[in-house]
Amino acid sequence: MKVDLNADLGESFGNYKCGMDEDVIKYISSANVACGFHASDPIVMDKTVSMAKEYKVSIGAHPGFPDLVGFGRRRMAVSPRELKAMVQYQIGALYAFCKSHDVELSHVKPHGAMYNMAAKDKKLAIAIAEGISEVDKDLILLGLSGSLMIEAARETGLKVASEVFADRAYNDDGTLVDRSLSGAVITDDNVAISRVIDMVKTGTVKTITGGRVHVQADSICLHGDGVKAVEFARKIHEALIREHVEVTSIRDVIEEHRIAV
Amino acid sequence: MKVDLNADLGESFGNYKCGMDEDVIKYISSANVACGFHASDPIVMDKTVSMAKEYKVSIGAHPGFPDLVGFGRRRMAVSPRELKAMVQYQIGALYAFCKSHDVELSHVKPHGAMYNMAAKDKKLAIAIAEGISEVDKDLILLGLSGSLMIEAARETGLKVASEVFADRAYNDDGTLVDRSLSGAVITDDNVAISRVIDMVKTGTVKTITGGRVHVQADSICLHGDGVKAVEFARKIHEALIREHVEVTSIRDVIEEHRIAV
Amino acid sequence: MKVDLNADLGESFGNYKCGMDEDVIKYISSANVACGFHASDPIVMDKTVSMAKEYKVSIGAHPGFPDLVGFGRRRMAVSPRELKAMVQYQIGALYAFCKSHDVELSHVKPHGAMYNMAAKDKKLAIAIAEGISEVDKDLILLGLSGSLMIEAARETGLKVASEVFADRAYNDDGTLVDRSLSGAVITDDNVAISRVIDMVKTGTVKTITGGRVHVQADSICLHGDGVKAVEFARKIHEALIREHVEVTSIRDVIEEHRIAV
Amino acid sequence: MKVDLNADLGESFGNYKCGMDEDVIKYISSANVACGFHASDPIVMDKTVSMAKEYKVSIGAHPGFPDLVGFGRRRMAVSPRELKAMVQYQIGALYAFCKSHDVELSHVKPHGAMYNMAAKDKKLAIAIAEGISEVDKDLILLGLSGSLMIEAARETGLKVASEVFADRAYNDDGTLVDRSLSGAVITDDNVAISRVIDMVKTGTVKTITGGRVHVQADSICLHGDGVKAVEFARKIHEALIREHVEVTSIRDVIEEHRIAV
Repeated sequence: MKVDLNADLGESFGNYKCGMDEDVIKYISSANVACGFHASDPIVMDKTVSMAKEYKVSIGAHPGFPDLVGFGRRRMAVSPRELKAMVQYQIGALYAFCKSHDVELSHVKPHGAMYNMAAKDKKLAIAIAEGISEVDKDLILLGLSGSLMIEAARETGLKVASEVFADRAYNDDGTLVDRSLSGAVITDDNVAISRVIDMVKTGTVKTITGGRVHVQADSICLHGDGVKAVEFARKIHEALIREHVEVTSIRDVIEEHRIAV
Repeated sequence: MKVDLNADLGESFGNYKCGMDEDVIKYISSANVACGFHASDPIVMDKTVSMAKEYKVSIGAHPGFPDLVGFGRRRMAVSPRELKAMVQYQIGALYAFCKSHDVELSHVKPHGAMYNMAAKDKKLAIAIAEGISEVDKDLILLGLSGSLMIEAARETGLKVASEVFADRAYNDDGTLVDRSLSGAVITDDNVAISRVIDMVKTGTVKTITGGRVHVQADSICLHGDGVKAVEFARKIHEALIREHVEVTSIRDVIEEHRIAV
Repeated sequence: MKVDLNADLGESFGNYKCGMDEDVIKYISSANVACGFHASDPIVMDKTVSMAKEYKVSIGAHPGFPDLVGFGRRRMAVSPRELKAMVQYQIGALYAFCKSHDVELSHVKPHGAMYNMAAKDKKLAIAIAEGISEVDKDLILLGLSGSLMIEAARETGLKVASEVFADRAYNDDGTLVDRSLSGAVITDDNVAISRVIDMVKTGTVKTITGGRVHVQADSICLHGDGVKAVEFARKIHEALIREHVEVTSIRDVIEEHRIAV
Repeated sequence: MKVDLNADLGESFGNYKCGMDEDVIKYISSANVACGFHASDPIVMDKTVSMAKEYKVSIGAHPGFPDLVGFGRRRMAVSPRELKAMVQYQIGALYAFCKSHDVELSHVKPHGAMYNMAAKDKKLAIAIAEGISEVDKDLILLGLSGSLMIEAARETGLKVASEVFADRAYNDDGTLVDRSLSGAVITDDNVAISRVIDMVKTGTVKTITGGRVHVQADSICLHGDGVKAVEFARKIHEALIREHVEVTSIRDVIEEHRIAV
């Protein structure tokens, strides 16, 4: 049994430091590297790719909206064409550092508002999938399990990996419970870890109503911004090993899942 | 006998139009495509690469300083490391559009203040050359004939092409006469065209003092911003054909010049 | 009888020219000056204020979203607090150039997506109105006639002027007919001019269904981007004079309308 | 005897936190507030002005180069005209928040590379001084003691305050010893504090060669980025009080120094 642990890395910018990349990288198998639109700059990207290579962590592009002051978290009314081009631009920018360090660019995970919008808007999801596919059809789209991003990637013929959240409750239809609702965020680390192991082993998760719903747990999203987040990354990594779940790259995971099917 | 004609294309930005790309592209063999730092945006880059492909014009990255309001023309005190990373970032960004349109990225020509600074600062020139080489050692650096950029590219083992100017006077040491001096800019189109043909055929140019100096005329820099500039591009293209000089890609030219040596 | 003619000026940026400011300024009484977020830069702002002073045209701030590549036309999910602060920042920036040229800053007209969003979202409209009022309670908010921006400004105790469009059809409830619908845009200059005179003289406009609805025509929005737009500005200015309507500043107009009430 | 203690505040940006503003503000009498070009954003500016008002700290604009990724520390070849306009823009932007919080904008201190360039380039220094004076001739320019910025401000008729550094060695001509030289930075807090008290009380400082040179110590520059910096601010504030030196606003200090002359 295999699963990928991913986290957003390289979100510092110029004089501004952000995230505990050096710590969280020890526990993950994939890094989503910011590409200069919502965060990061060329020097930070170069350093982050270098660090990912050193730790043998898979590298993905983490494109965002051109909104540095809003950290890519504000929805922007972009057209599919604009979205496609901005995703391609950012993938290319990161690709240069992968080539310069002689490592593979393995996947793409949209960031923040772009991720959330594409999860629910098929036209935007298609724009992202086609944008990725045109640049390199071997790249993997990492998107929200059960979302339109996954559907769009499949239709586009793109490789795809589904991501689940350790610290979020799920509705009966497999969507995430809205953050504004009670119980939406799971704050107990042990509960979160049990749920992750459950998702990986059974391919299902207990919903907020007490039922069960299918989730495709190819990759688990971790955070890297704070001591507590790093500690959680360490704990979940240990727990997975203990449960004989191999923590490995997205590519390995989806290859295994493909064969399993 | 072969020569390349290059021009800067794709310098529009969002709502702002700039340059007469659709006209000048008919007369050139290489386009230097802006990469979003001093000009351009992802949509403009996509369109420009598409147009270059249609016209069978070679595509080069045209990286500049991150100074949109100054159009990359203001000198910035960047470190070699910053410069290298910003060049790599921009090459990668354009590379994505080349891959998406399935065309080759052939060369890199730094823009504006970056070009001028690297022509005279060996450390910066080396940073650019190494940056290019690490991303793709088959890329050609297009730089000012006789400058430190050419020297740095050679030392780095990078392919290199030398550019000359149709409308500029030369000093006895092969450098350009400073724009502030009388006679620095050649305003008569026929004189400019004769000089270009002279440079291509003899590998030398008449200097401002009446002497002769060697110039390596692999490529001639044309402008695309204005009716007069486009008209000049047309005239020089016709004159070269008439003189049995083949207007072809940078790669062809330097291959021929390599064999000739 | 009085009316203001307003146009957006100073939307050039760095090397990029945009608009025919020098022509349209002859026919307007108020200039909405871009403030560097969606367009313009400090030099352009300085020049535009200087030109407005020369032509005795009232100066207004024209704040937009921080989206230069999208020209402030893309909706962004900003919070009321973010919106208020970005409006205040931009008003202040323009205010500096008004002080340096010793002219009054008379009004504020939000730009593009900010204008459209605030017309229909009361919280955003209030954020803008409060932001303006806190900086200078004597500034006039120029907003869409009948919109929530007008309502918010009134509730905030801010001076307000209502703007109408010469080239747009109106629904029976006084809102603009959506651009996507047939008949939404009036392309015949003479029809447009007649409608404006009708609006100014009667305070009503013929709706798309053939009825009549009240519109508060304090100011008429003109365009400055193109020969045709400038020609229309000239014609409407002449027609108003011919009809004994005084073209004067927003402040004069709303003062008169206040007394009339 | 009076002196001002100043520090740079409000250098956070969007999601990025920078500086220990809440701590250092307790010990200073003047805050130089970043204006969005090298650091800060409208929300941060609003908060910082509000905090300065609460702590009764004088507020100054801290304009920088438009180089967020370089934090305004990279020299840029700007023209005097560009510099003047960018300074005016930033002063105005901050001025809006001062008006909205009903507090005075007291001074202007250029940031980073702008500060260093203007200290040695009279044309740039004049551009800054004239820019400030045109916006508000009652603003005080805070510049490096003995530099061309002070000279330019005097010639422009602008109020001026001279700043000294607690942690830097001085040459015999009153300039700072270059950071690359041994002994340039004073690392012992007690030595630094003694030197400051000496400068304030005698108007002279012991130079690196052991001599004495005049320095005009209207204001002392403190740092706010780190626990040690805040600790030093606390210690120097206490030492000054103990030595019966009043820590007060720049305006008070230069008024007193004017009378003393």
